[in-house]
Amino acid sequence: MRVKVILQYDGTAYHGWQLQPNKSLPTVQATVEQALSTLYHREIKVQASGRTDRGVHAEGQVISFDTSEEVPVARIVPALKGILPEDIGAIRAEQVDGNFHPRYWAKKKWYRYIIYHSPVPNVFWRNYSYHVSYELDYSKMEAASSLLLGSHSFKAFSTTRTGVKTFNRELEECSLTKKENLLYVDLVANGFLYNMARIIVGTLLEVGRGYMAVNEIEKIIESQDRKKAGPTAPPQGLYLKKVIY
Amino acid sequence: MRVKVILQYDGTAYHGWQLQPNKSLPTVQATVEQALSTLYHREIKVQASGRTDRGVHAEGQVISFDTSEEVPVARIVPALKGILPEDIGAIRAEQVDGNFHPRYWAKKKWYRYIIYHSPVPNVFWRNYSYHVSYELDYSKMEAASSLLLGSHSFKAFSTTRTGVKTFNRELEECSLTKKENLLYVDLVANGFLYNMARIIVGTLLEVGRGYMAVNEIEKIIESQDRKKAGPTAPPQGLYLKKVIY
Repeated sequence: MRVKVILQYDGTAYHGWQLQPNKSLPTVQATVEQALSTLYHREIKVQASGRTDRGVHAEGQVISFDTSEEVPVARIVPALKGILPEDIGAIRAEQVDGNFHPRYWAKKKWYRYIIYHSPVPNVFWRNYSYHVSYELDYSKMEAASSLLLGSHSFKAFSTTRTGVKTFNRELEECSLTKKENLLYVDLVANGFLYNMARIIVGTLLEVGRGYMAVNEIEKIIESQDRKKAGPTAPPQGLYLKKVIY
Repeated sequence: MRVKVILQYDGTAYHGWQLQPNKSLPTVQATVEQALSTLYHREIKVQASGRTDRGVHAEGQVISFDTSEEVPVARIVPALKGILPEDIGAIRAEQVDGNFHPRYWAKKKWYRYIIYHSPVPNVFWRNYSYHVSYELDYSKMEAASSLLLGSHSFKAFSTTRTGVKTFNRELEECSLTKKENLLYVDLVANGFLYNMARIIVGTLLEVGRGYMAVNEIEKIIESQDRKKAGPTAPPQGLYLKKVIY
């Protein structure tokens, strides 16, 4: 049977979900596969909804793997709690269709980026947000956000990788929420190109601080030129919130 | 001149503010004194408002030290930012009365304890809260909290240490606030005995889960017997929020 598991992880101590071997830090994938292999007493390999970079967090990463029923599905979450390190947690496990694939079946993904916006940094948020001390014009950032919405090429907002068939994506939500010193940027799309969420945030910050005009957004989209967009915001502010099927 | 500095620190990686030497982890005090000594090019020793235990955090620890004016007060916070590790931050620095003492001059202290109350733990809160998965009756906890208020002996709510003149303290506030999965317990008193905040929280949790009746609180106070109170809640949920002068 095929099992789907929702994972939460603090990416601080990992070299991303899955990256090149021979790195000094472990990957989340290797750690999870090792825990599952311990649980099932044989080698388990998992599929994921997508990779997350070094330092990026997840509240709703989705994985799947095939197994016999030797461990009842209801036992998987509590059993993993005793095996996984404290910075990775299984939230839910359920049996799914035998053809389910966490990446190919995904309809949408929701990413959240957290900016800690204050003249003074906060030690508790150092690994969980991007500290911005300069002033930001939120209304300009909101105007820029709405220009990013819709179905079009996001090539200018991605780091080119081989094997990408199309740079078109549909950005359904790009919203800002202020909560005390935190500024959340919530992004929902039918797919995200490599670094897309972080480049969008980096561009919104350029607009917010007045380094880029709101109406440049449309020109950046049309240009399909990565160099026209803003910098890639750092990884520790990014969270994979949810994969929607 | 005497300088007062407000410090914020993530206590996870430290052996408390100041504890016995020959421990494997550094102490916050040693780390701060080392940073100040680097800044002033000579040995600086500091006074603090009080100790915090291993794993306990601070958002408003207050320290003071004596120095000449070679570093302008306005430069201390930015200069320390470049010297202190990322999990310790100086928030504010100001010149104070030459007799100021962060401990003896303190009128009140505010501690916050954070309980992560959910059937499922949250990896992001593992070092910053106490995860409680069992059910809690908040109204009973609130009733017990109000019985703890006032000026009386807190001997039953402390781990005995030598050198304490009186176990009488005035608990001015003991309030509960629920915010999504977080339960804050805010405690304000004219002083806290050793482990007092954590034992109060441990006792409130016993009441909340129905292991202890609300009206036992008064008997525990009267008994002055540590064994009658609840267990000491773990350190990672505790924050020294503010010292009031």
